[in-house]
Amino acid sequence: MEAHDLARQGGHTVNGVDEYKESFDGIEVTRVKVRTKVAERRLGKRKGTYVTLDIPGLRRRDPDLQERVTQVFADELNRLLDVPENGSVLVIGLGNEHVTADALGPMVVTKLFVTRHLLEYMPEVLGNGQGYRSIAAVSPGVLGLTGIETSEIVRGIVERVKPDAVIAIDALASRSLSRVNATIQLTDSGIQPGAGVGNNRKSLDRETLGIPVIAVGVPTVVEAATIANDAIELVLNQLREQVPGNAATALFDQLSTGEKWHLVREVLDPMENNLVVTPKEVDDFMEDVAYVVAKGLNVALHPAMTMEDADLVTH
Amino acid sequence: MEAHDLARQGGHTVNGVDEYKESFDGIEVTRVKVRTKVAERRLGKRKGTYVTLDIPGLRRRDPDLQERVTQVFADELNRLLDVPENGSVLVIGLGNEHVTADALGPMVVTKLFVTRHLLEYMPEVLGNGQGYRSIAAVSPGVLGLTGIETSEIVRGIVERVKPDAVIAIDALASRSLSRVNATIQLTDSGIQPGAGVGNNRKSLDRETLGIPVIAVGVPTVVEAATIANDAIELVLNQLREQVPGNAATALFDQLSTGEKWHLVREVLDPMENNLVVTPKEVDDFMEDVAYVVAKGLNVALHPAMTMEDADLVTH
Amino acid sequence: MEAHDLARQGGHTVNGVDEYKESFDGIEVTRVKVRTKVAERRLGKRKGTYVTLDIPGLRRRDPDLQERVTQVFADELNRLLDVPENGSVLVIGLGNEHVTADALGPMVVTKLFVTRHLLEYMPEVLGNGQGYRSIAAVSPGVLGLTGIETSEIVRGIVERVKPDAVIAIDALASRSLSRVNATIQLTDSGIQPGAGVGNNRKSLDRETLGIPVIAVGVPTVVEAATIANDAIELVLNQLREQVPGNAATALFDQLSTGEKWHLVREVLDPMENNLVVTPKEVDDFMEDVAYVVAKGLNVALHPAMTMEDADLVTH
Amino acid sequence: MEAHDLARQGGHTVNGVDEYKESFDGIEVTRVKVRTKVAERRLGKRKGTYVTLDIPGLRRRDPDLQERVTQVFADELNRLLDVPENGSVLVIGLGNEHVTADALGPMVVTKLFVTRHLLEYMPEVLGNGQGYRSIAAVSPGVLGLTGIETSEIVRGIVERVKPDAVIAIDALASRSLSRVNATIQLTDSGIQPGAGVGNNRKSLDRETLGIPVIAVGVPTVVEAATIANDAIELVLNQLREQVPGNAATALFDQLSTGEKWHLVREVLDPMENNLVVTPKEVDDFMEDVAYVVAKGLNVALHPAMTMEDADLVTH
Repeated sequence: MEAHDLARQGGHTVNGVDEYKESFDGIEVTRVKVRTKVAERRLGKRKGTYVTLDIPGLRRRDPDLQERVTQVFADELNRLLDVPENGSVLVIGLGNEHVTADALGPMVVTKLFVTRHLLEYMPEVLGNGQGYRSIAAVSPGVLGLTGIETSEIVRGIVERVKPDAVIAIDALASRSLSRVNATIQLTDSGIQPGAGVGNNRKSLDRETLGIPVIAVGVPTVVEAATIANDAIELVLNQLREQVPGNAATALFDQLSTGEKWHLVREVLDPMENNLVVTPKEVDDFMEDVAYVVAKGLNVALHPAMTMEDADLVTH
Repeated sequence: MEAHDLARQGGHTVNGVDEYKESFDGIEVTRVKVRTKVAERRLGKRKGTYVTLDIPGLRRRDPDLQERVTQVFADELNRLLDVPENGSVLVIGLGNEHVTADALGPMVVTKLFVTRHLLEYMPEVLGNGQGYRSIAAVSPGVLGLTGIETSEIVRGIVERVKPDAVIAIDALASRSLSRVNATIQLTDSGIQPGAGVGNNRKSLDRETLGIPVIAVGVPTVVEAATIANDAIELVLNQLREQVPGNAATALFDQLSTGEKWHLVREVLDPMENNLVVTPKEVDDFMEDVAYVVAKGLNVALHPAMTMEDADLVTH
Repeated sequence: MEAHDLARQGGHTVNGVDEYKESFDGIEVTRVKVRTKVAERRLGKRKGTYVTLDIPGLRRRDPDLQERVTQVFADELNRLLDVPENGSVLVIGLGNEHVTADALGPMVVTKLFVTRHLLEYMPEVLGNGQGYRSIAAVSPGVLGLTGIETSEIVRGIVERVKPDAVIAIDALASRSLSRVNATIQLTDSGIQPGAGVGNNRKSLDRETLGIPVIAVGVPTVVEAATIANDAIELVLNQLREQVPGNAATALFDQLSTGEKWHLVREVLDPMENNLVVTPKEVDDFMEDVAYVVAKGLNVALHPAMTMEDADLVTH
Repeated sequence: MEAHDLARQGGHTVNGVDEYKESFDGIEVTRVKVRTKVAERRLGKRKGTYVTLDIPGLRRRDPDLQERVTQVFADELNRLLDVPENGSVLVIGLGNEHVTADALGPMVVTKLFVTRHLLEYMPEVLGNGQGYRSIAAVSPGVLGLTGIETSEIVRGIVERVKPDAVIAIDALASRSLSRVNATIQLTDSGIQPGAGVGNNRKSLDRETLGIPVIAVGVPTVVEAATIANDAIELVLNQLREQVPGNAATALFDQLSTGEKWHLVREVLDPMENNLVVTPKEVDDFMEDVAYVVAKGLNVALHPAMTMEDADLVTH
């Protein structure tokens, strides 16, 4: 779920919502806080903080930019993370590792500096653990391959591991072409693994797991219907501007409700409507962004770990 | 290059072009033959035969359909292939194996039943070669990774191997969403590896290689701009129909030349215009279609090989 | 743990142990049943049934043999499996999917026909489930990557999924070169994930999970020390035979206790003693044997599934 | 072919052979130069320079050591490389990329900073090429998959690309367990791709290609027979020492000719004698050593490239 445009609706800021923006070289950070029940209802979003890193250059494989993004991401994660320095975190890599565009979670998990077993069985290799949180990490798979609701697997593991917090990583479907492979999102309001069929029991959040849950998401796919719809919106707006007060305008506006989607469906009919697409360069992008997220997690989760250290342990 | 709509332009068949259609269960075969210089110029296509297999169900992982497609593909390839039963063929797997959507050629090459070395060094393992053509296969890589024009590599190898014909396999960019992962194309008119910057010297065809060249292509990607453009076309057509003779119509028609592309660019601006997308399920699809093409080649190239045999050698 | 030579020790059958052998074309099946506490102690093996399929030809990529092995494996699994036709099974793919020789479990899991979610949410796609058991499957990862004891993860999942039985798949270290990539082993006595440091709490068995546990193992690696040791044993035996009653014999026999291992260590010193090796062709072998095991599971677990059906669902 | 023990035979240095040794922190460099026809015959090695980097710690994934190895390797390569600063090099990645232990060459090729096409089509992106050699790179595949002798493919490409020199990268079979995954070898005397059936026509060397050829090899596999043989040698030596002048000694020495190999064969019989093994951790090792070799090549081949630059372009 993208939180980016939440705070402004119809051009003005909603009551009960705070929004801050900050810019770095090539990175724009937006922090939106939904504070009240009223705002929750109006935005259709749960109370919580939603942080978005917009990085249009992320698709261009620029190592310097990636380094800056890693640092900003680590900082933002630390703001959200409410776990003591000697606390424990369970990282959940959501998604299907055999579908490249969906594999972010499992890829990040394999790159983490996992310490829970070291701290338990041989703390001396970590200088008795000073500066290292107890990190565990699991990729639970997806319903279609396991036959089990992902949330069930996670709850089973949480009950035995008893971490202080969960961080869930997932590749997301975006509602906007411009965010695909160009955004990293964080929230403390939880996440729904899979297609999100709307069953609250299946969420991973503080309510269902009993501990804080931070979700980290990167939009990697977009529905083809979205691209078509955006194009149609745009041409209609253009026409409205150029034929103001015209009889045609009425027609367009009439169109903009039900008929527009009918049109979109017609365009996309051959692709069976719900075709989801991803940039052709998805293999390289996933490798890059998984590295950024994993290294950011390694730095944020272990106070003793510098960016240089993280390069050595983030494979 | 898609040949599918070649023969009909403006609603009627072009002179000097033959077109045949044939339907199988779930597969529509179109054979277009460009016969004259005039047709060549009018269509902007070289003389030659263009065969298209339209298989809308190919995306759905239906093993029965895949089996039928394999057989039809093998038959069509045999119609185009003008090589004696004891002749030799060099198969070229074009594309970048590290970009899933572009990896068709290299994937097919690894699944072929290659015989050239067996026939030379130990023909007895193939019953002295009766019913087996001499098949060699190479994946030359892409310019960006080798630093060498693919056509140069192929010519260097052809000069030493001296095959009777070349078959080049490649993943294609489609100009239509509906053909992505739903079409297999064959032609005897050659192919241009890579983005086709229009340098004839770089083609792989009878002229440059001195032997027949058959190209086999599967559209696996489409420009996002194409999706947007198709959507805009459609909405404009709809409006034209509903407001005929209206002042607005003139505006739309005016729009349809230069401005439309300006609009498309505006929609796609955030994605840097030339974004190329592929269905999210590209990993599974490539595996399936590479199997179909490789098994079809194995059956078509070796007269002694049955479909059952081919299952055992097509890994 | 290999059960193959269990029943005969010092040349005669141990009391309280049953052993049956059966031969198929290229496959030798041995079933050993450890029945009594006494036998348990003498063999150092828990009570239970140990089935070994010896298939020396398995390394040779023979599709016909693989087909026969699949059927024999499915039959043996069915003998051990005590689950009603409408019962439920959780398959656990043990091992590290990023280390090819250790990836058997995760590879099998991705090839299974998982049905638990289908039977729950859309039983109609399976003809209301007649002939299909409820199968779930999970790859829990390894301690070094998750930071969590594998047995803890499995217990957490078992508690929530509540299957009637667990089947655990794992790649094994063999104590004999001849069994690597040539044996499939089954037992109903449980399994210890990972290096088996001897902590009973960490076993996966009926005692710890409260339900039947069947382990399926394929030896894929062997310690280099084993190869060296076998070679030394052999040369000493040879010398003993040729210089009987000689003063040297006493020396050899003396050697055979502590010094022999010292010698072995000396040979292997450069490789840090505990070097574990796998045949160079491990990539192809793992692909083949994962297919055999997964297809065998699919056929054994779903009474309605024929070998032909299984080919379509075992990717 | 390992050159490591060449210069000393029977304990003294051979005439016509120079040997130098140099030690770095954790790396021992040996340079052997075979200078005369006589030495060539006595050593069974062609005239040329053989450089070996012994790095016992290379298996332990130590990033600091890897960095030092990269620098030493780059320096040694530069000593051997006789190409002007604006010259051109074709890198050949030998081996089968689908067999992990054999994939070094193809893995290195994908990590190289290839410049030939950039220098030809857009030299401005490289500051008009100052400090960058023209590098092209190809992975020709293996005979079993292409049906073509690798040397034929390479010669075809060399004839068209016309580089000043060739560098061939390959994974090697070692004759000693201690060198596997612990050695990097360089020579200017050429290389024979594949099993080296002894056909000189198939070598890649200055004679067959007409330009200097540098071979870079890393032993990644060893015959199981070698491990067994080493063990037997050792135990016999031990016995010889302990029973000097004994009747048994004669027996052992008699054994050491023909019978020893008979013994070895007996040990390895179940594995079909020619079993080739590789450490279980081959996946990680190949990734690490391919990075070291590729980064070393990038630094050595491009005078303008620092170690830091190389990190950014060596993916």
